[in-house]
Amino acid sequence: MLSVEEARARILGGLAPTPAEAVALPEGWGRVLARPVIARLTQPPADVSAMDGYAVRAADAVLDARLAVVGSAPAGHPYAGRVGPGQAVRIFTGAFIPQGADAILLQEDAVAADGVVEVREAVRAGRWVRRRGLDFAEGEALIAPGRRLTARDVGLAAAANHPWLMVHRRPRIGILATGDEIALPGDPIPPGGIVSSNAHAIAAMVRAGGGDPLVLPIAPDDREAIAATAAAARACDLLVTTGGASVGDHDLIQTALGQDGFALDFWKIAMRPGKPLIWGRLGTTPVLGLPGNPVSAMVCAVQFLMPALAVLSGEPAAPPPTIQAHAGSALPENDKRFDHLRATLSRDRDGRVVATPFPQQDSSMLKTLARAEALILRAPYAPALPEGAAVEAIPLDRLGL
Amino acid sequence: MLSVEEARARILGGLAPTPAEAVALPEGWGRVLARPVIARLTQPPADVSAMDGYAVRAADAVLDARLAVVGSAPAGHPYAGRVGPGQAVRIFTGAFIPQGADAILLQEDAVAADGVVEVREAVRAGRWVRRRGLDFAEGEALIAPGRRLTARDVGLAAAANHPWLMVHRRPRIGILATGDEIALPGDPIPPGGIVSSNAHAIAAMVRAGGGDPLVLPIAPDDREAIAATAAAARACDLLVTTGGASVGDHDLIQTALGQDGFALDFWKIAMRPGKPLIWGRLGTTPVLGLPGNPVSAMVCAVQFLMPALAVLSGEPAAPPPTIQAHAGSALPENDKRFDHLRATLSRDRDGRVVATPFPQQDSSMLKTLARAEALILRAPYAPALPEGAAVEAIPLDRLGL
Repeated sequence: MLSVEEARARILGGLAPTPAEAVALPEGWGRVLARPVIARLTQPPADVSAMDGYAVRAADAVLDARLAVVGSAPAGHPYAGRVGPGQAVRIFTGAFIPQGADAILLQEDAVAADGVVEVREAVRAGRWVRRRGLDFAEGEALIAPGRRLTARDVGLAAAANHPWLMVHRRPRIGILATGDEIALPGDPIPPGGIVSSNAHAIAAMVRAGGGDPLVLPIAPDDREAIAATAAAARACDLLVTTGGASVGDHDLIQTALGQDGFALDFWKIAMRPGKPLIWGRLGTTPVLGLPGNPVSAMVCAVQFLMPALAVLSGEPAAPPPTIQAHAGSALPENDKRFDHLRATLSRDRDGRVVATPFPQQDSSMLKTLARAEALILRAPYAPALPEGAAVEAIPLDRLGL
Repeated sequence: MLSVEEARARILGGLAPTPAEAVALPEGWGRVLARPVIARLTQPPADVSAMDGYAVRAADAVLDARLAVVGSAPAGHPYAGRVGPGQAVRIFTGAFIPQGADAILLQEDAVAADGVVEVREAVRAGRWVRRRGLDFAEGEALIAPGRRLTARDVGLAAAANHPWLMVHRRPRIGILATGDEIALPGDPIPPGGIVSSNAHAIAAMVRAGGGDPLVLPIAPDDREAIAATAAAARACDLLVTTGGASVGDHDLIQTALGQDGFALDFWKIAMRPGKPLIWGRLGTTPVLGLPGNPVSAMVCAVQFLMPALAVLSGEPAAPPPTIQAHAGSALPENDKRFDHLRATLSRDRDGRVVATPFPQQDSSMLKTLARAEALILRAPYAPALPEGAAVEAIPLDRLGL
């Protein structure tokens, strides 16, 4: 049996990021940068005032000095002249410091009347002046490729004068649910059948990870149907199948896809819930086969699909992000399989995060998965832990998983 | 001066959630549920097998018993007959248990040949049977209104047979940047001007919060222009302005909007960065006026706009979510203003989260904001803290802020 880490490393090692596309700045949020954002200007573009007040020559602005107010410099309307000896210019936050001035007399430290301002607090040279380039300088690399852009990054790229951003194309992920027993929600349910939940849960995870899901029609457990539907996946960056991955079904998927040149690897992963995983290629398209059990499918998607989506999107290869928490109940010793305990999160009296596993962890219970806030990770052969012990957990609400 | 908590409570108290719309299941991800998801069927719909093996009568399946295999029940193809004494039916995970059978003999505990299966491990009644309704029962409320739907919720709603979901309409947020000195990225920059970064950063935050941003043309500092552009905001659930909120500008916005029946409240908030905030109504549209300084605008947006967006979206009123971290450096005593220190996050040797403030916190430094991973919260008059002390912080990467 393969470990979770080995399986993930093999999957991620076989993937390459999508090429770049040019998107308008407002479309950049949540996308992964493909080329660096370089500052196209210097910010601030000149020395500017950090406060409302008066631009003065510090040498003149001694206590009780009276300076002639010769003009005004609101933001966006620089004072064209020069501040000479004994002079001051009314100034506002963000406005360029006029020539000749070297400091700001704060509004609250001044009394103005009849074109004259009286200094009530002596001024130091350079005081309340934001230097040209304090934030960034033209040519400076501001945002590096591989970063998923936040709202703040969009603001920074705007300030650096970029109307366009070069980002990785959203990976298109084909999703193929197989099985005679499943029907789409609202469609007639065959005798002995159930409603398909995997395809749309996985599609939502793909959206959460910044991908573009393509839900294919359900394929019955029939060689021709699987092969025909899978052919539709050729335009995808990754094909995800669910179902058809138990021991008996293994040959069906392999044979059905084999006529399209499918090179399949069938892995038993030492994890729970999870069991078998298919990994291979259909022509050049990588194929990730998840189990048909909804809880197993989603836990495998968290461990393998989400990191794969990140790599396809241009982000660095990494395991799912975890948090440290304290066990809300005692945990038994673990067996040889890497375990994922569905848990709720809370805070204790000291503000520490507590992860409490649900008492029942049956892998068919989708409701428990939906209500979980985290998956407590239990390594193979992890020893029993008392309540309160430190545990690692994958927070599921992060990015809407 | 108003406290951050009072200001937020007043803002949230004046907002109501948007009405519901019907969206197709795949569009439900990230939306806020407006009506409960009630199970339309029972899951599993009958007693089903939890494993691959043989459906048997436990009374017969004693050690070394030999049972006649009379049929097969793959998932989706229930066995139509009845399991009689001395009989067994081949069964697969998820398949309905045939009538007469009351337990599963595991595949690995059986040896099958020539239509006969030999029991190598005695079977208990009920063993490896998942009872009808183990996951949920028809009529059960599965997902409550007010919840932002995760991928797992979409899966659960699908399994409960819902092709449609009733969710709150995305709040439409008008965004109006004012100022003679600002230009859109790539457009000609006026003398003494800078590139506008607030509108698109705030639009990205609105997207991150599940809203629908409407970026209005920049309004110059001119009464008519502000009034005309703001009129376009009548169709919005909230109008956000940036700039025009310093002491001198206050009258301009108030007068410009006043002719449209603007009832304005001008608040000084005891926070840093931040200073003044406008809150009022333009007809029936609530108006939130953020400062023009990009860092102040975004920190105010985190504290006031994001919670407002959540309430408009149908989520409960709440402050921004925080994490507990340990200070990465000593923190000085705080003054009367609630402070937000831009900080990076890391993990120490024990796996604990450490939040380390940037040495320079000048409110004009957008680059520092973009590189921050959290805002350390410092209450008014918070005492000095040594390195390692517990602090609360708002994680900014959550939801792409």
